[in-house]
Amino acid sequence: MIKVGIIGATGYAGAELVRILMNHKEAEIKWYGSRSYIEKPYADVYQNMFQIVEDTCLDDNMKELADQVDVIFTATPQGFCASMVTEDILKKTKIIDLSADYRIKDVHTYEAWYKIEHKSPQFLEEAVYGLCEINREKIKGARLIANPGCYPTCTTLSIYPMLKEGLIDPSTIIVDAKSGTSGAGRGAKVDNLFCEVNESIKAYGVANHRHTPEIEEQLGYAAGEPVLINFTPHLVPMNRGILITAYASLKKEATYEQVKAAYDKYYDSEKFVRVLKKDVCPQTRWVKGSNYVDVNFKLDPRTNRIIMMGAMDNLMKGAAGQAVQNMNLMFGFAEDEGLKSVPMFP
Amino acid sequence: MIKVGIIGATGYAGAELVRILMNHKEAEIKWYGSRSYIEKPYADVYQNMFQIVEDTCLDDNMKELADQVDVIFTATPQGFCASMVTEDILKKTKIIDLSADYRIKDVHTYEAWYKIEHKSPQFLEEAVYGLCEINREKIKGARLIANPGCYPTCTTLSIYPMLKEGLIDPSTIIVDAKSGTSGAGRGAKVDNLFCEVNESIKAYGVANHRHTPEIEEQLGYAAGEPVLINFTPHLVPMNRGILITAYASLKKEATYEQVKAAYDKYYDSEKFVRVLKKDVCPQTRWVKGSNYVDVNFKLDPRTNRIIMMGAMDNLMKGAAGQAVQNMNLMFGFAEDEGLKSVPMFP
Amino acid sequence: MIKVGIIGATGYAGAELVRILMNHKEAEIKWYGSRSYIEKPYADVYQNMFQIVEDTCLDDNMKELADQVDVIFTATPQGFCASMVTEDILKKTKIIDLSADYRIKDVHTYEAWYKIEHKSPQFLEEAVYGLCEINREKIKGARLIANPGCYPTCTTLSIYPMLKEGLIDPSTIIVDAKSGTSGAGRGAKVDNLFCEVNESIKAYGVANHRHTPEIEEQLGYAAGEPVLINFTPHLVPMNRGILITAYASLKKEATYEQVKAAYDKYYDSEKFVRVLKKDVCPQTRWVKGSNYVDVNFKLDPRTNRIIMMGAMDNLMKGAAGQAVQNMNLMFGFAEDEGLKSVPMFP
Amino acid sequence: MIKVGIIGATGYAGAELVRILMNHKEAEIKWYGSRSYIEKPYADVYQNMFQIVEDTCLDDNMKELADQVDVIFTATPQGFCASMVTEDILKKTKIIDLSADYRIKDVHTYEAWYKIEHKSPQFLEEAVYGLCEINREKIKGARLIANPGCYPTCTTLSIYPMLKEGLIDPSTIIVDAKSGTSGAGRGAKVDNLFCEVNESIKAYGVANHRHTPEIEEQLGYAAGEPVLINFTPHLVPMNRGILITAYASLKKEATYEQVKAAYDKYYDSEKFVRVLKKDVCPQTRWVKGSNYVDVNFKLDPRTNRIIMMGAMDNLMKGAAGQAVQNMNLMFGFAEDEGLKSVPMFP
Repeated sequence: MIKVGIIGATGYAGAELVRILMNHKEAEIKWYGSRSYIEKPYADVYQNMFQIVEDTCLDDNMKELADQVDVIFTATPQGFCASMVTEDILKKTKIIDLSADYRIKDVHTYEAWYKIEHKSPQFLEEAVYGLCEINREKIKGARLIANPGCYPTCTTLSIYPMLKEGLIDPSTIIVDAKSGTSGAGRGAKVDNLFCEVNESIKAYGVANHRHTPEIEEQLGYAAGEPVLINFTPHLVPMNRGILITAYASLKKEATYEQVKAAYDKYYDSEKFVRVLKKDVCPQTRWVKGSNYVDVNFKLDPRTNRIIMMGAMDNLMKGAAGQAVQNMNLMFGFAEDEGLKSVPMFP
Repeated sequence: MIKVGIIGATGYAGAELVRILMNHKEAEIKWYGSRSYIEKPYADVYQNMFQIVEDTCLDDNMKELADQVDVIFTATPQGFCASMVTEDILKKTKIIDLSADYRIKDVHTYEAWYKIEHKSPQFLEEAVYGLCEINREKIKGARLIANPGCYPTCTTLSIYPMLKEGLIDPSTIIVDAKSGTSGAGRGAKVDNLFCEVNESIKAYGVANHRHTPEIEEQLGYAAGEPVLINFTPHLVPMNRGILITAYASLKKEATYEQVKAAYDKYYDSEKFVRVLKKDVCPQTRWVKGSNYVDVNFKLDPRTNRIIMMGAMDNLMKGAAGQAVQNMNLMFGFAEDEGLKSVPMFP
Repeated sequence: MIKVGIIGATGYAGAELVRILMNHKEAEIKWYGSRSYIEKPYADVYQNMFQIVEDTCLDDNMKELADQVDVIFTATPQGFCASMVTEDILKKTKIIDLSADYRIKDVHTYEAWYKIEHKSPQFLEEAVYGLCEINREKIKGARLIANPGCYPTCTTLSIYPMLKEGLIDPSTIIVDAKSGTSGAGRGAKVDNLFCEVNESIKAYGVANHRHTPEIEEQLGYAAGEPVLINFTPHLVPMNRGILITAYASLKKEATYEQVKAAYDKYYDSEKFVRVLKKDVCPQTRWVKGSNYVDVNFKLDPRTNRIIMMGAMDNLMKGAAGQAVQNMNLMFGFAEDEGLKSVPMFP
Repeated sequence: MIKVGIIGATGYAGAELVRILMNHKEAEIKWYGSRSYIEKPYADVYQNMFQIVEDTCLDDNMKELADQVDVIFTATPQGFCASMVTEDILKKTKIIDLSADYRIKDVHTYEAWYKIEHKSPQFLEEAVYGLCEINREKIKGARLIANPGCYPTCTTLSIYPMLKEGLIDPSTIIVDAKSGTSGAGRGAKVDNLFCEVNESIKAYGVANHRHTPEIEEQLGYAAGEPVLINFTPHLVPMNRGILITAYASLKKEATYEQVKAAYDKYYDSEKFVRVLKKDVCPQTRWVKGSNYVDVNFKLDPRTNRIIMMGAMDNLMKGAAGQAVQNMNLMFGFAEDEGLKSVPMFP
C-alpha cells in the first residue's frame, strides 16, 4: 500500500483522483491539499464523499508532503508545480504533474504559449510524457511524469497510427475538438455559469489554444518531423467528455482494411484504446466514467481525406484516470488497478 | 461464483445490472435476455460494453434459463414475471423481479392500479419486498424478491423513521417527487425525445401514479395503520436521479436533536443510507452512480410540519443497485459487493 | 413614445426587459444602467444585442435618470431601490421595482426575512403590488409598483381562485416549487456553474425562503385571513421556467366542474392566464419565452385534497414580462403590447 | 393579408412556421396539414398554441390546398413535395419547399445522395434556391422556392465572401458542423431520446451526409468552379442552434482588415447576417429564437489557414425563418416582417 498526496484536491481533476483512489487496492490518500479550503472537511466541499472521506483539506506544502508520501499528484494551475519541484523532493517521492509544466520539452515554446516563466527547466529533459500507450516503458522508471492534457491525449491517440505508418500528410492535419464543461475547471466565472453554457455551443481559443504545441510535439514524434496543425476546441453543454474529429489527406490511396490494420497494430493489445467496428462513430456517452478512449476513422475517396475520431472522458483518461494509470506503471501495479469501472450509461 | 440470468437486459435497468455485475466478484452473467434484440451482440446495443461483454442477446425463456443459472433478474414490463414464474422454476433458481408484480400484497389493489390481471397471485405471500434496510433478514432466506420501485425506495427510506417512531401524523403525508428521465425507460416515444424533455419540467400521473399504493403499503407497515398519501412525480431534464420532498405534520413538538436521533436509530449502521449534516439538503448529483440514499429533514415551527428529503440514483438504489444488494443478501455475499462505486461527480 | 430607464440592465431580468422593449411600439430605452459594466457597450455584455442595441452602460444614478425618463425599472439587489426612491423622484417619474423592497406591506416582516433595514418604509403603503390580473385597477394609477417575485406570481395565480371562493382550507397549503437556473441570477458563484447544476436537482431555502412571506401575504388577501404555508423551491437544470405544485385540503367535496368554474370565473377573460383542459398538466416548455401562466388542478378524492399546478417563464411573467405588463397598464397602452410573443418550443 | 397553407405543420420546422406566422402582419394560416394528426386540434399537439391556434389538423391534399391559399409551405420528408407539385398547382399558388427536393439542380446527384427517384425533375430548373442574401432578386419573382437546408445555409453564408473574392483555395475546405437536436426531427426514435442525446456528443453521417452536395453546389457557384468538401455534422445536447467551423487554406497572405473587408462587402447591408467584432466567436446562444446568422473568422499565420465560423438557429434562419423571409420577398412584404424577434437569452 503506497501513500499518496494530492495538491489541488478540490478541483474537478483532483476530485476525480480522489474518487478513483477510493477503490484502488494499492494506494491510500494521505494528504488532500487545497489552498482554498484549508482545514475544511473534504466531504463538505464534495458531498459525494460524505462518510467516505473523513479527512480535512491541507495546504500545498510540497516539501513537507514529500516526506510523507510515495507519490504526489499536482492538479494545480500552470506554473505551480514547476515552481515547487526540487531535486531534494524528487529524491524522496515521485511526482505526477497534471498541469502543463513539464509536457513541452522546449522551454521557449512553453513560455511563449503559457505566458509564464518556467521555474525549473532543468527537469524538462528528465520528465516523461505520461501517455501510457506510447511511452509505457519510460514511464515505469520515471520520477517525474508530465501527465498529458485532455485534448492532446485524445488527439494523439486518434491520429498516432496514421502518422507512425506514414499514411497521412502531416501538413494537412486539422483537429476540431469538443469538450464537456468540466474541462473549464471549477472557478467561479460568469462564462461557465449554467445559463451561459447550457443550450449553446461555441469555439474558443481559436488558433491559439495552449494545447496546440503539446499536440504538435507529440504528433511530431510520431511523424518523425515537425508538425503544425490547426486545433479548434469547442465548449459543449455536458459535464464530461471529449470528442475529437481530425482531418488529414492520405499520402496515397488506402483501403479500409489497410487503415484498420494500422490502428490494430498499435492498439490491439491495449485495454484502454478501443478501435470500434467499421462505420461506428465514437460517442462520449459510451466512455463516460471510464478510462477508455474509443477511436475510429472514415475514409473519404471523394476528397482523398481520412476523418479520424476519438472519444474519451476528459476527467478520466484525459486527466485523473491517466494519472493513476501512470502511477500504476511507476509502482508496478496492474495497469488497470483502480481503473476497471465500466462506462456509465446513461 | 454464481451464475446470473437477466431478462430485459437491454432496458436501462437491465443495462445497469450488467454494468454493476461486470465488477462483481461472485457473479457472472450467463444470459442476456432481450426480446427486441435476439441474436444481436449485446455490445452493439450498448456500445459502452464494447470489448467488455462479448455475448449475444437471447430470448426470455425463463424455464430454460432456470436450468442454467442460480438467480434470474427480471427487468421487464409489468405482468411478464407474474406470467412466467412457477413452483418448478422457483425450486431451481431464485428470482429477483424488478417489476411491480410482487410488490403489492393485495392482488386487487395491484390489479386496480395496474389494470392487468395477476397471473400468479399464489406467490404474493411468499415474495419478499426487497427493501434491504428494512427487510434484511427475510431477504436472506427468500426465493422470490419483489425489488422495490424507485419512488417507493426513496420515499420509504426518507420517511420511515418518523413513522416508526410515531413522530408524524400519517394522514398528512404529501410526497412531491422528481425523477431523471431514465426512469421513463428506453421506449421510443415522442414524449421522451430530447427536445421534449430538455428545458422543461412537468408533473405526471398526478393523483394516480402506480407507485402510490406501493408507497402506501410500505408506509402503512411503518405506521402500524393504513396510510393514504398524495404522491406527485415530476420529470426532470437529467439522466439519473430521484429527489423526494415529503411533508407531514408533527404529532407533537420535536427538536432537531430528537428527530436526528430517530433517523440515526435506523440508519446509523446502514452503509447505503446517509443522514446528512444539519441543514444540508440532499442533491442527486452527490449520489449519481452509487447505491447511496442521502436523506435529511428540516423542521418548520411556523407550520408545525417537517420536510423530509431523500436523493438517490434511480437506476442504482432505485433499481439495479438494490437488486444486486438483494442478491448479495440472498447468497451470503458481502452486502456491498459490486456496489462500492463512489458517487461520480460531476 | 415614452422613455424608459433600466437600472440593473445586465442581470438576467434586466436583459429580458431590454429584449422585450426592443419590440415595444410605445417605449424606448434611454438608459442602460449597470454598475458593473459602466462605459461598456451593452452589446458587448449581451452579444445577442449586437447591431440591435448601440448604447453603452451607464451608472445607476436614479436622481439624474428621473429627469430623463418617464419610467424607471429597477432590476437590482434587495435594498437598492428602497435606498434611492424619494418623493422628488416619484413626482418626476414612475418606478417599477423588480426587487422585493416594496412587496411586503409590513416592514418588520420584510426586515426579518431579508435581514436588511428598509430605507424608505414611508412608500410601502403607496406601492402597488403589481400582480396585474388581481390588482389591475390600482396599478393603472400607481406611481410605484412592487413587481411580484417569480414564485409568488406563479403560486398566487395557481391558488387564488380556490382561496377566493373558499374552497380550500388555507392552513393546509403546501407549495412545492421548481425553478430554472436563470432565477439564481448572473453572479459568478460556484454553486451556479454548469457542472454543479447540470444533471442534478436539489431543494434550497427549505422553510426559510424569502418569497414565503410575500406568498403568504397575497394568499392571505385572497383568503381574507392570515395564511401560513410551507414553501419549498427546487433548482432544476434548465435555463427558464417555474413550475409550482401546490397541495391543499378541500373544505367540502367539490366536483371537477365546480372547481373548473371557480378558475374560469377569475381567468376566463385573462389573456395571460390559461386554464388548461381537464387532465392536462402545465409544463414549462409550453410557456417559454412568453408571458403566459398555464394553470390547472387535479382532485384526489382518496385524500380529499386538490393538487394545483402552474407553469410560467420566470423571466417573463415572473419578472420582466410582468413588469412591462405593469408599465402598459400604468401608461394606458394595450396590456399585451410588447408581450405578444408566442411560447417558443422547443 | 395573404393566405398560407402548411403541409407538415406538426414537425419542428412546421411548428416554427406556425409560431412565426402568428405574429406576421400580412399572412394568416388557413391550413394546418399533418398526416399524423388529422382532425386533432393543433393546440393538442403543440400546447404552447393553446388559446392561440384554434384550428384542427387537416390532411396533405396539395391540390385542394392550392385552390385556397396564396402560398404553400411543405415541411415534409424528402420526395413528398416533388411527388405532388404540378404545373396546375404552380399556376394557382406559390410553393416554398423546406425539403431538399428542389435544392440540387442535377437530378442524378439528388437521386444518388437521397436514394429516391425524383418525381418532378421538370421543375428543377425553375426552382429558385432560397438563400435570400445571395439570390434575393430571383426569389422575388419565383413560383417555387427550394428553401435551403440548415447546414448549407450556415456554411454557405460563413464561407461565401472568401470564395467570391478568391481568397481561399476551394479544394482545401473542411466543414465541421454542430447541431442541436431539433434538427433530427420529431420522429420517435431511440437515438433521439433524452437519455441517449443528453451528456454526449457524436459525429454522424461522416463523409456521406446528404447536405454535402447541396453545400458543394452553392460553394461552387461562389467559387466559379466545382468544389468538393469534407462535411462532418455532430449532434449536440441542446434544442436549437447550429455552429459551423470551417477551415481553408488562403490563396495568398491576407490581413485581418482585408478579410474583414471581404465579409463587409457582402454583408454590410444585410440585416440578418452579423459579422462580429474581431476575435469574437459566434455562439449559438446569441442567435436563439432569431433569424440572425452570426459569422466571423480567424486567421492562422502559422498554417496559412483561415477558420471561418457561423452560428444560427436551425429552426429559424435554418428552416422556418428563412422560409418566411422568402415569402416576404416573393410577396413584396418587408423582408423582416414576422422576423423581428430579438435573440432570446438565456
